[in-house]
Amino acid sequence: MSSGSFVAPRRTLMGPGPSDVSERVLAAMARPTIGHLDPAFVAMMDELKDLLRYAFQTGNALTFPVSAPGSAGMETCFVNLVEPGDTVIVCINGVFGGRMKENVHRCGGKAVVVEDEWGAPVDPDKVEAALKAHPEAKVLAFVHAETSTGARSDAETLTRLAHEHDCLVIVDAVTSLGGIPLKVDEWGIDAVYSGTQKCLSAPPGLSPVSFSERAAERVRSRTAAVQSWFLDLNLVMGYWGGEGKRAYHHTAPINSLYALHEALLILKEEGLENAWARHAHHHAALRAGLEAMGLSFVVDEAHRLPQLNSVTIPEGVDDAAVRGRLLEEFDLEIGAGLGALAGKVWRIGLMGHACNRRNVEYCLESLEAVLSQLGAPIDKGAALPAARAVFEQGTGSAATG
Amino acid sequence: MSSGSFVAPRRTLMGPGPSDVSERVLAAMARPTIGHLDPAFVAMMDELKDLLRYAFQTGNALTFPVSAPGSAGMETCFVNLVEPGDTVIVCINGVFGGRMKENVHRCGGKAVVVEDEWGAPVDPDKVEAALKAHPEAKVLAFVHAETSTGARSDAETLTRLAHEHDCLVIVDAVTSLGGIPLKVDEWGIDAVYSGTQKCLSAPPGLSPVSFSERAAERVRSRTAAVQSWFLDLNLVMGYWGGEGKRAYHHTAPINSLYALHEALLILKEEGLENAWARHAHHHAALRAGLEAMGLSFVVDEAHRLPQLNSVTIPEGVDDAAVRGRLLEEFDLEIGAGLGALAGKVWRIGLMGHACNRRNVEYCLESLEAVLSQLGAPIDKGAALPAARAVFEQGTGSAATG
Repeated sequence: MSSGSFVAPRRTLMGPGPSDVSERVLAAMARPTIGHLDPAFVAMMDELKDLLRYAFQTGNALTFPVSAPGSAGMETCFVNLVEPGDTVIVCINGVFGGRMKENVHRCGGKAVVVEDEWGAPVDPDKVEAALKAHPEAKVLAFVHAETSTGARSDAETLTRLAHEHDCLVIVDAVTSLGGIPLKVDEWGIDAVYSGTQKCLSAPPGLSPVSFSERAAERVRSRTAAVQSWFLDLNLVMGYWGGEGKRAYHHTAPINSLYALHEALLILKEEGLENAWARHAHHHAALRAGLEAMGLSFVVDEAHRLPQLNSVTIPEGVDDAAVRGRLLEEFDLEIGAGLGALAGKVWRIGLMGHACNRRNVEYCLESLEAVLSQLGAPIDKGAALPAARAVFEQGTGSAATG
Repeated sequence: MSSGSFVAPRRTLMGPGPSDVSERVLAAMARPTIGHLDPAFVAMMDELKDLLRYAFQTGNALTFPVSAPGSAGMETCFVNLVEPGDTVIVCINGVFGGRMKENVHRCGGKAVVVEDEWGAPVDPDKVEAALKAHPEAKVLAFVHAETSTGARSDAETLTRLAHEHDCLVIVDAVTSLGGIPLKVDEWGIDAVYSGTQKCLSAPPGLSPVSFSERAAERVRSRTAAVQSWFLDLNLVMGYWGGEGKRAYHHTAPINSLYALHEALLILKEEGLENAWARHAHHHAALRAGLEAMGLSFVVDEAHRLPQLNSVTIPEGVDDAAVRGRLLEEFDLEIGAGLGALAGKVWRIGLMGHACNRRNVEYCLESLEAVLSQLGAPIDKGAALPAARAVFEQGTGSAATG
């Protein structure tokens, strides 16, 4: 066993998350730890909830960060809103829809699966058919932005369909929050969870969630106890939800919350619309470069997430060798394929603080260099001019990185 | 909503946790975030597991930090080791034993409760009687160091009794790890969970756990699926437990793990035995001072935790006013009573990095000043000399802080 301090290498994080964390957020995280019931901390929690409401575009009282990563945010939604025997319609078009189904089973629920191709969005027609075929269904669950494929589904339409059939919706917004429009109140989303390490660019470890009053009422009127003590919203509400005096539930991850507070403040300073435009603009430049190089996208243009770019690995190219060289020689992390797409695609993230011109150009240059070394069939020298042409057009937004 | 960065006040943390976090640990936490599958991070994880094995005094392969606070570590033990219908003997002598019982219920288990007074240790005779009366019991669960009272129970004896009756043990070591002897292998503990924000003095948010091979085998041979996807050890083992290639399960809280790694390194540099001696020595000084002031301890000397000192609030003294003044005027946090002891006791922590001579003296001076202001019946001027007399005796250990 080595006995030295861990000196983290400085990487450029362009995988599916975590994304690059700014010095400002890292500095916030390193501020002195204080007590979780300290009035100063409680005041910070109130600000944090307001900042999260802004990011989610909601007025929901029950909006807070779960003290654990996105997977626990997902579980918070399912264990609180699904009772044994409940039917839940689950849309699967990638890894994370599959994980939702697993959650339904572990809550004793019955999952009705609506499947779509990996890389395609959730098909509203299939969802409507399932809602009609299962009038007993109580919840519709889907992923807004599939991190495993880079596909965006139409959360607004899916939510409207669910409500027409008297279902609540649970929405996975882990990769969408801060990167593309997500309008919890305008769309009427009942329960949503996200992560800190994607387009918010805070370190991983927390899961922002928000519940509509209708969802909160469902939790309060359950007949079966929530199977998780740690995630039981009836208890958590006493800590995060209350006004004034807070009931001790668990010890909040103080410093991680400092970091999230700072990351949300940065998002608010930029403005959500500007952040969405920045992601779209840099995606356009990256895409121009990747396509000029000869790489092709997995997801149709109409449903493509700007913050997660899945490209097909060219025939005969060694996936692991390319990612390994990018990491070792360029300190650049891009993501491997997951599940059914393992070995077939790369996932290039442009998330939050990592979504900037320097990263777009660095990624194109590094990828071209490594693919050239390995003799892959690409068009050399075309990527950077194509990306720069997009940058030179500008966006009208000041925030082009 | 305020829109400024949160500037944490600099407190002295002498409550029940979090404890003061050193600059060294805060600096580690602020190192650049890297990917959770980055080879550099994976190597750090291996070191971290070894450091945790040292802290727990175990060779258990399945030793890792759960990616959430201590309450989730507790839940990890129960959801994995308890199946619906299982009988679990739960010892309750404070808040956290009660929480264990709640966990058993939520796993569909049957809890047989062995109760002791708050402030007393768990009585081995009562436990033995319960084990005899319930030969069907599969697990004995108890709290080694009750954070709500400051009582230490005899984990070695209780574990031996459980094994004589073919039960596994689940041990809450949230407040004991690093502060008093805890010998997982020597005592034969099957499952143990702790927290980072007590005697390890890392920020809160992670829960170190360790499972014996016998416990791991129980998890692998379950008939019912673990009800929590996030905490299912069968899945987590693929990420934390494996050799070489790691299966993606969830995104680990990278920076929080940097901090824990550094905190464990500091513990190893000091040496466990020295850390235990340091806690005992500073407790002796604090106790001498508090008793000289006229305050009395809740827990009998034989079962008292050095790192958590519960003292009775003198008659007629306003609990909240004292703690409020300590925080506002002295930036000093001490803990309130919890549950049945709310309003009746203060809990003064001497944990990890916060367990040093400066803090002992500062606490005595501040508490004396505030109690004097409020007209409480204390012996003025006696506390500091009494504590200093203990410090002047020394311990023979170099690490007297």
